[in-house]
Amino acid sequence: MKFPTAILAALLLSACAAPALRGTGDLGIVIERAGGSVVVVDSSARAILGRVEGLGDLSHASAVYSRDGRYAYVFGRDGGLTKVDLLERRIARRIVQAGNSIGGAISQDGRLVASQNYEPGGVKVFDADTLELLADIPATFGDGSRRSKVVGLADVPGNQFAFALFEAGEIWVADLSKPREPKVTKFRNIGSQPYDGLVTPDGRHYIAGLFGEDGLALVDLWQPEQGARKILANYGKGQEKLPVFKMPHLRGWAVAGGRAYLPAIGRHEVLVVDTATWQEVGRIPVKGQPVFVMARPDGRQIWVNFAFPDYSHVQVIDTLEQKVVQTLSPGKAVLHMEFTPRGEHVWISARDDNRVVVYDTANFAKLAELPAQTPSGIFFTSRAARIGF
Amino acid sequence: MKFPTAILAALLLSACAAPALRGTGDLGIVIERAGGSVVVVDSSARAILGRVEGLGDLSHASAVYSRDGRYAYVFGRDGGLTKVDLLERRIARRIVQAGNSIGGAISQDGRLVASQNYEPGGVKVFDADTLELLADIPATFGDGSRRSKVVGLADVPGNQFAFALFEAGEIWVADLSKPREPKVTKFRNIGSQPYDGLVTPDGRHYIAGLFGEDGLALVDLWQPEQGARKILANYGKGQEKLPVFKMPHLRGWAVAGGRAYLPAIGRHEVLVVDTATWQEVGRIPVKGQPVFVMARPDGRQIWVNFAFPDYSHVQVIDTLEQKVVQTLSPGKAVLHMEFTPRGEHVWISARDDNRVVVYDTANFAKLAELPAQTPSGIFFTSRAARIGF
Repeated sequence: MKFPTAILAALLLSACAAPALRGTGDLGIVIERAGGSVVVVDSSARAILGRVEGLGDLSHASAVYSRDGRYAYVFGRDGGLTKVDLLERRIARRIVQAGNSIGGAISQDGRLVASQNYEPGGVKVFDADTLELLADIPATFGDGSRRSKVVGLADVPGNQFAFALFEAGEIWVADLSKPREPKVTKFRNIGSQPYDGLVTPDGRHYIAGLFGEDGLALVDLWQPEQGARKILANYGKGQEKLPVFKMPHLRGWAVAGGRAYLPAIGRHEVLVVDTATWQEVGRIPVKGQPVFVMARPDGRQIWVNFAFPDYSHVQVIDTLEQKVVQTLSPGKAVLHMEFTPRGEHVWISARDDNRVVVYDTANFAKLAELPAQTPSGIFFTSRAARIGF
Repeated sequence: MKFPTAILAALLLSACAAPALRGTGDLGIVIERAGGSVVVVDSSARAILGRVEGLGDLSHASAVYSRDGRYAYVFGRDGGLTKVDLLERRIARRIVQAGNSIGGAISQDGRLVASQNYEPGGVKVFDADTLELLADIPATFGDGSRRSKVVGLADVPGNQFAFALFEAGEIWVADLSKPREPKVTKFRNIGSQPYDGLVTPDGRHYIAGLFGEDGLALVDLWQPEQGARKILANYGKGQEKLPVFKMPHLRGWAVAGGRAYLPAIGRHEVLVVDTATWQEVGRIPVKGQPVFVMARPDGRQIWVNFAFPDYSHVQVIDTLEQKVVQTLSPGKAVLHMEFTPRGEHVWISARDDNRVVVYDTANFAKLAELPAQTPSGIFFTSRAARIGF
């Protein structure tokens, strides 16, 4: 059998049409909420590289990254779990693992992906390579006949996951050192209706916000024998019954210089808390009801976005001066913010203006506007190297 | 012109012999000190992927990473600056930029690579893509006729570099926002003979160790108008004139939970310092004279290696218990340690046993031994996302 030169050239070309080699340290994705797609972005070039479609219902979607930074695991609201290949810009694997899901996490060693589910309530743990189900942890409580919604799932050192059970009022820590034999430690009676949770950047403290009462529940994961305790008893809606347009996201809580910066619920304030004592030490007035309160990686600035009707603004708090030093208007309906790994830039999604805006965090200059359809969450691969994301 | 099938197959194969696509988030290099080479490693597979040779004199070599994680910049003792492509495992570029050099840094935005030089004394700044020289900052001092050795170079937010001048007794901060027009702020009379320096993980405090007197010099980079001040006046060789087998590396200093863990000079101790007050709050006895004192990324453990004659051991301090909880013997002449990004493993180089040993940090189990020729520094790509590395 012989081949003419033209066919040979075509064969050579198609055989080598693989994407170019490149590092993955400066890649990321932007969730396109309405269309069930993500765009792959390059934070060095400040450019969109391409779009991956077919991810299902991406309202309230979030993502974590494989240890090598090549794959994003995208958790959809419809229980879809999609492994996206950022280099080839295609879906590598996809499963629908629950009826109603609210995000996930990846284990410290990168080998396990966990999803927190509303329906059926519980946590499922998958092999990060194959998405094979390895462990199913139903959130049963009380007499064992009911299952609770799971919220606030976060990875913890030691290949553990911590999460909270909304109806049960419990915090669980699951040790997945043997992935098919999870060992679960349960903290009971931690408070009424935990609605979200986070782990501090050092992986030591797990904190759940309470919807059914004021205050937060805290577990020192280094000293679990001390059990859960209540902190910030005045944190919450309080006596005044303020209208709350959107519950803030706890995952965004910022810890910087020994202080945590928390979104007040219903109030136009950011609370400042001493992380040694977990006592409130100050309040900073801001433009609206805070949703995400996020520290620039060096901790010098805290960036805040807001619930309706102030959701087209972003404010910047200087942590040395402890006050707002800048107000920006990136576009209509700001849903999320993401810092570049060392914090020189921030990417902000403006859903209703269909764009992502990039700012220089040193001088607040607008560096780029990138088109995206109803953008919401922005997630860079540097999250793979962080605890509690 | 026609091609037979066998030739076609060979052509297709060679046309596509490019390295396979892969993420770079779990890559790294190990310096092979004696041979002027590095091995490229995969921290997920715990495997050596290949060797790159021809890097010159790699005694006391160090490395930083490009923003995308694809390229390592290796600083050799002979003034060589080599850009190594981890994916293709070859030298992408190499220059000899000084006669005697002692390491370097990469700017916050990843666009500038800086080298600190002994001879001629100063800092040179290069384009990270091309290694073109952009700025030359001679370390002239006094009447302008002499140049000082430069030590302790570190990146600082705002595309700045901080460094210390050994003979001059000065700390300089160079703002490279306009790379060809560096603006240098000089802190004079900071103390006698600064021999190394570091910036805290939040990029706020620059600290230089002093060889000519006891104590350290500290600059609050958020409040440079306050100037430099002395801290820990008893830190140093002190009155007793203990034999010092090797000056500790300051870059390894660990900051965890509001405390810094410092190698005592000449003493078999790790000093514990409160980073709010910069006062000493404790001392932890260890097996030998500490060289590197490094925090596991979550801050729960501090790992310590030692100068001769105790240089074949490593000890682990538990920061909750404030004492040594483990002693390991990875091999002869332990020179460096590197944690995986989220801290589940640590890689340790044992120079005289020609191996790198990987441990599980949770249970101290030995996971792997990898062959390397006279291994010294180990550097993972996750450094690209960290401040002050």
